[in-house]
Formats: sequence, C-alpha cells, structure tokens
Amino acid sequence: MNLLIQNGTIITMHNKKIIRESAIAIENQAIIDVGKTQVLKQKYGRSYEKIDAKGKMIIPGLINTHQHAAMSLLRGYADDLPLKEWLEKWIWPIEQHMTAHDIYVGALLTAIESIMGGTTTVKTMYHYTLEQNEAKAFADAGLRGVIGHVCFSWRKKEDEKALRDLAENWHNKADGLIRVSVDPHAPYTVAPEYMKELHEMRRELSNRYGSKEAPITSHIHAAETRDEVEKIEHAFKIKLKEGIMAYLDSLGVLDEHVAAAHCVALTNKDIKVMKKRKVKASHNPISNLKLASGISPVLKMLRAGVTVSLGTDSPCSNNSADMFEVMKVAAILHKAVNKNPAIMPAEQILKMATIEGAKTLSWEREIGSVEVGKKADLAIINLQKPHLCPLYNETSHIVYSVKASDVETVIINGRIVMENRKLTTLNVEKAMSMVEQAKNNLLNKLNANVK
Amino acid sequence: MNLLIQNGTIITMHNKKIIRESAIAIENQAIIDVGKTQVLKQKYGRSYEKIDAKGKMIIPGLINTHQHAAMSLLRGYADDLPLKEWLEKWIWPIEQHMTAHDIYVGALLTAIESIMGGTTTVKTMYHYTLEQNEAKAFADAGLRGVIGHVCFSWRKKEDEKALRDLAENWHNKADGLIRVSVDPHAPYTVAPEYMKELHEMRRELSNRYGSKEAPITSHIHAAETRDEVEKIEHAFKIKLKEGIMAYLDSLGVLDEHVAAAHCVALTNKDIKVMKKRKVKASHNPISNLKLASGISPVLKMLRAGVTVSLGTDSPCSNNSADMFEVMKVAAILHKAVNKNPAIMPAEQILKMATIEGAKTLSWEREIGSVEVGKKADLAIINLQKPHLCPLYNETSHIVYSVKASDVETVIINGRIVMENRKLTTLNVEKAMSMVEQAKNNLLNKLNANVK
Repeated sequence: MNLLIQNGTIITMHNKKIIRESAIAIENQAIIDVGKTQVLKQKYGRSYEKIDAKGKMIIPGLINTHQHAAMSLLRGYADDLPLKEWLEKWIWPIEQHMTAHDIYVGALLTAIESIMGGTTTVKTMYHYTLEQNEAKAFADAGLRGVIGHVCFSWRKKEDEKALRDLAENWHNKADGLIRVSVDPHAPYTVAPEYMKELHEMRRELSNRYGSKEAPITSHIHAAETRDEVEKIEHAFKIKLKEGIMAYLDSLGVLDEHVAAAHCVALTNKDIKVMKKRKVKASHNPISNLKLASGISPVLKMLRAGVTVSLGTDSPCSNNSADMFEVMKVAAILHKAVNKNPAIMPAEQILKMATIEGAKTLSWEREIGSVEVGKKADLAIINLQKPHLCPLYNETSHIVYSVKASDVETVIINGRIVMENRKLTTLNVEKAMSMVEQAKNNLLNKLNANVK
Repeated sequence: MNLLIQNGTIITMHNKKIIRESAIAIENQAIIDVGKTQVLKQKYGRSYEKIDAKGKMIIPGLINTHQHAAMSLLRGYADDLPLKEWLEKWIWPIEQHMTAHDIYVGALLTAIESIMGGTTTVKTMYHYTLEQNEAKAFADAGLRGVIGHVCFSWRKKEDEKALRDLAENWHNKADGLIRVSVDPHAPYTVAPEYMKELHEMRRELSNRYGSKEAPITSHIHAAETRDEVEKIEHAFKIKLKEGIMAYLDSLGVLDEHVAAAHCVALTNKDIKVMKKRKVKASHNPISNLKLASGISPVLKMLRAGVTVSLGTDSPCSNNSADMFEVMKVAAILHKAVNKNPAIMPAEQILKMATIEGAKTLSWEREIGSVEVGKKADLAIINLQKPHLCPLYNETSHIVYSVKASDVETVIINGRIVMENRKLTTLNVEKAMSMVEQAKNNLLNKLNANVK
C-alpha cells in the first residue's frame, strides 16, 4: 500500500530537524519522500491513500529496548515485595505453569499495548517455545521486534534447540519485522564457559541466517543490582578483578552487537569497557526504581560516549509497556540525581527512545528516524487535547506531557496497524479475553499444586 | 439529581474496604448509601438515574494538594534550564503580562485536565484577581478546590485587598465547591512580621467567613530547595537556629490548618515540629525531580506520623496535572531511595492521593473516601483496556497501571461533570482555543516589550 501522511509536524530525529505543514510518502514498507505537503501532494496525491495529520505530530515509532513481553500475564500479580520473596514465592512458582500458548497470549497483549502507546519496535527476552511463541505474537500484531531466547547454564541443550529453531524460523522473517537474538540471562546465571559458547553460537547463527545489515544480536541483563559481583563469585567460585563489564570483556564476549539491560551497578572501568567494545545500554528507570535496584549512571555513560536507549522492562516490574512514561521518568530522575535541571533535556531523551534504541538493536539502518529509505515506522500524535495545550515546543510536549493514549495512528513497516486507536491487525477484545482465561488457568494450576 | 452507580468495584479508602458488584446511591451532593447492587437497586432503583459500572472501578476522586492552576498557560514554554535562568529569564518576564482573564483561562484549562484525569479537588495557589480568577474557573468547570492568594512582603496592601475579597466572595461558595486559603509564598519571600500578620489575618477571616467544619486554611512553599535557610537569612538579615519548620514554629504560625508544599530539605527537627503542630505535607515528586530540587524524606515523615499527600505542582514544572503519574512516581522513587521495594506500597500511595489529601486541606469530613454522608466526589475507571489486563489487584492497577485517560466518568458534589470522557460543564474546544489565544497574546506582549 502507498500512503501519504500530510499536513503534519514531523519530528524527524535526523539532524534535529522538525518540519511543519509537511508530508511523508510511503511506498510498500519504506519512506520514499519527506517534504512540504504541497510538493508531495502534487507528486503522489493522485494514487496514494491519504492520512490527514493536521494539528498532529508525526514521530518515529518508539523503540523499547528491554521487555519480557509474555510476562504481561503477571501484571499486578505481585508488587511491593522484597526482591527475593517476589521472585521465589510469587513469580517463579507461577511461571512454572506457563505454557507455550500462555507465552503467545502474554506477548500478544504486550504487542497490543506497545502499538497503542506508539511503540513500533520491542526487544523481548523470554523463553522461546517452538509451537507458539513471542515471535508469532509480534508478527500477528504487526509489531517489529527482536525476539530473544533467554539462556541459563542449567538448560544448555534446551537452549541450543530453541536458539537454532528461533534463528532458522524467525530471523528476518514476517516481511523483515522480526529479528532474533541470543540472550544469556545474566552473568550470574550463565557460567563463564557457557557465556563463551553462546557468543560463538551467536556468531555462527548470524553468519548462517543473518547479514551485515541484519545481524543476529545479543542481549543480557547486566549490573542490575549492587550484589551482582558477589553473586557471580559465589555461583562460579571465581574472583572478579573488576566490575561486571570488565569480567564479560575478559571472556571475549563483548562487541557492538551486544546490548546490556539495566547497567545500574557499573564501575568507571565498566563504562570504559562499554565504550571500547561498543556495548549498548538499555536504561529501565521505572523497573529499577520499583524493584529498588538503584539508579543507573546514565549521565556518566552518555558523557563517555556509550549509546544509551530506553526500556520498560517487564509488565510485572513496571507495570506498563508505556515508553512515554519511561521517557518522562528518565528525564526527571537524572536531573534530580545529578542536581542539575538542565541535563537530560527532552531532545536527548527522545533520541534515546528512537534512534539510540535502533542503534542498541543494531537496526539503525532501517529504523529510529524519519528519513528517506528507512522503513516507515511512525506514530501520529493528536495534539488537540487539553493536557497538550498550549503548544510552545513539540519535543518538550512529547517527553513531558504526551500520554500513550494520545497516539492516534501507528504505521509499522509501511502498514497501518492502528488507526484512530483501533488496531487493524487483530481483535483486541478477543486477545483480552484470552489473557483473562490464561490468567485463570494459571491460578487454578497454582492452587491445585498448593493443595 | 439522584444517582445510582451500580455493578462496580468500589475502592472505598475507608477501613481498607474494597467491595465488588456494588452500588453507590447519591442524593443531591452526598453519598447516602453504599452496598450490594441488588439491595440498593431495590431501594433506589425506581427513581434514580443509573450509571452502569460493570467492569469498572469507582474510586474517591483524587485530591491534588499543590497546584498553580493558571500556569498551564506556560506549559512547555521553558524546560531543562537552570532554576535561576528558568525563573528570571523565562517565567517571571512572561508572567508580568498575564491578565486576570489569562489567569481565569489558564485555571479553566487545569480544571478540565484535572477532571479528565479523575482529580476532583485541587488546591491552587496563585495571584487572586478580583474580576476574573481561579475560583470562578473552578466553579465554572464544576471542580472542587481550595483557592489561595499568594502573598509576598513587597505587596502587602494588594494582598490584603485580594485576601478579603477572596474570603468574602468565595469561601464556601458555589454550592460549597470552593474554599479559600491564605498563602504566604515562602519563608524567604515573606518577612517574619508579615508571616505573623498573615497568620492573624487567616484566623480573623476564618472566624468571620469560615467555620469549624469549613475553616479558611493556609498553604506555603517550604523547604523546597537545599539553600532555603540561606535565602531566609540573606533576605531578612537573621540567623536561623534550626530548619525551616522550626523557624516557622518560632513565629507561631504553624497549626493543623497549615499545609506545606515540597518539604524536600527537612531536618529531623523540622519533621518533629510538623508532627507536633499537625502541619501537613504536600509531596510533589515530579516537580521536585524535574527542577532538581531534591527528594523529600517522605518515608521519615510518614514514620513520624506526619500527614503526607500528593501534588502535581504547576503545569510548567511537571508538565501535567496528572495525579496517576504522580502516584506512580511517588511509589517507585521512594523504594529506590530507601533501597526497599516493599515500602510505599500501592495502598499507602492511594491513601496519600485521596483521604490524606483531604486531611491536608482540612476537608476530610466531606471528601477523600467513599462513605455515607460524604460528598459524592467519584471517578469511574474503565478496566477493559489492554494495559489494565489481566486484573489481579485493583489497588496495584490504580497506582502502577491506570492512566488518566482511563477515567471515564467523574462526579463532583453529586453532579456528573464528565461522562464517557465528555465534560458536561463546559465546551472544551472553546476553552482550548481561548488558551491558544491567550498564549499568542502573551508572546506578542513579550516580543513588543523586548523591542
């Protein structure tokens, strides 16, 4: 389908350009022209389907670089608990009962919520299951995503089978919407040798199924809490000389296609290593605060030249998939922590949620900004709302005032996946009732188990 | 009008009761019955207008205890700046051009945004103007509020005139929707003697126009930044022995009808004074973070038995009037700061946004919970949204997952002021265009002044 979005204000996230009264021409999956409405109307007006964006802003779709999409099934199941109790008494026992179908349904719900909040790409890390899985859920919803399989030392065989199936069946599939990644869970759950094996497997799978433009990447939880060094030392009977990143680097597993989620407890040396190895960071402020993990030294990373993007983390440690909320919290939190209201300005934050997100997923050639040649992943935001009135500065509004619910229309890969807040790709009511059913099944199984 | 809201889940905020499949009967302004739908339907079903709340939650309307409502006119006008530059080069120069009409229009916009986000009572502190003002804006919108006039040492005469007019014309007016307060701006802008005079004036006005049940209260910015002691010492050539609250107490101006906004830079002694004098705190986490003022020791205040409520602060230091956002940020921020994910649980936060807010405004006999005899100030939240699915725990959802836009219907003083997200009290489009016009006028005046 060819589309012409016209009369809008385009926040390009390319060379800081904001262009008003402008249009975007889309052919098939890609943006083929960006310019003044009058000009593009003459060139494409006759045959293109039109979307009127008068009084609206068009932004690159937001990129959420850390999710566990299936876990939306557990949203609000357990909150306000000490971390150990939360995991051991609540999350893990119920997760044991999750089926492949549950994973599919949970990921479908996250895909819906993401799209409805203007997020067009999500990196998710969960258990990949062969029959039904997160990749299928994202593809069904029309959401772009990097689907990982999370690996643990205690299930190497199962991991390998999952990873090979995932890479073969999903990398660069669904019209290029889906890419895959090899995701060691964390430095304290993946032994040093297995960490190296996974690194090799990623290279092998990327050579086989990927390309220079579309590599298979890697994603890992790292330095999430202050006791992580201790946990590694205890788990593997080793002694770390320096921080988490220095340790991973000593294993030879860091390169430009590795993204690390959280990065809370980093040493200065860790940050140097990240810069040197071009490791990207996914900052998850809401989850880090809610779980009391701490506050990531984002300003230090940025000043050192590390790429930092934003993530929501899972719907049970957030409990939303709302990237607008994450942008606002990231902006205000670091001002306070650094005692400086001028740092982390709105423009910087919006970069982190778009083009820096694309870089974090090694996908910046195709997404993250409104540029000719890139994929058409766009969110159209209605500005005619009392809480967005008056308008002085679009970027300020996006970060500090816009709500997920102000996103009106979403285009992913050139396809309209939401129009006037109605999803075009699937039946939302049906998905919600599948989720409630899955939740009830889980609780029944849990109760049966307890008895 | 008599109303029966039926089939909903009622979060009463009274004795921790959450009652399902239940109904609320409203006669004129007040709640006259709360109970099972079947029972209330039989009692009131014949003659009462009905609202079906199936699949919905009914909560006490949220109470925002710190706003400068008129400043919505400057939302997004200046962000990400050092505090001094922000105030001196941006906010104050443009504020000089604000007319009484501008103040009315700005407050109207905040009233609309508040209602649309489930907030039914707002404490606002701004310049009271005789002709048009915030009180009229709130009354026109049907919003409950405590309208203050902000006082400064440099304009005592003007303040007195404003305060007397405000008290006479607005206290307990508009069907009891509006109450008023005497608001010294801050300890560093109001000299010690004037602080005492204002305290006396408040007592005098309260005796004359108020009552034990409906007192005229007082509201002050206090301990907002770390340099406040210094600022007081510099402004009035005095030496403070202890913190801000101890200083105010030494002037004899603290009592149970005083609320202090921010309370960031408090000493332990300050907290003791607050407890002793029953001074209430309005915690404004988003504004405090955005302006890099610091983080209020909320947990310490709560543990000392001080009443703490929540506020958004002005739309140009937030830049929203969204109490759901404030609840979430308050909940997660203090977990991280105190390194404990179990503190500030959802239930506590919701109390702060409802019944503790009512106490902060000395209005808890009438608002803050769903109880027979109280005013009917209610927000009905639609739970049938992907981001609120599945449902395990209503209170968790309210604090961590519900968005302002999920509020469907709002009742204030027994009157439906918003139904299915449409305001019944005024024309929102017209208000928005008045705001844009007021903004343009302000910018024109500012530019003319610069030339």
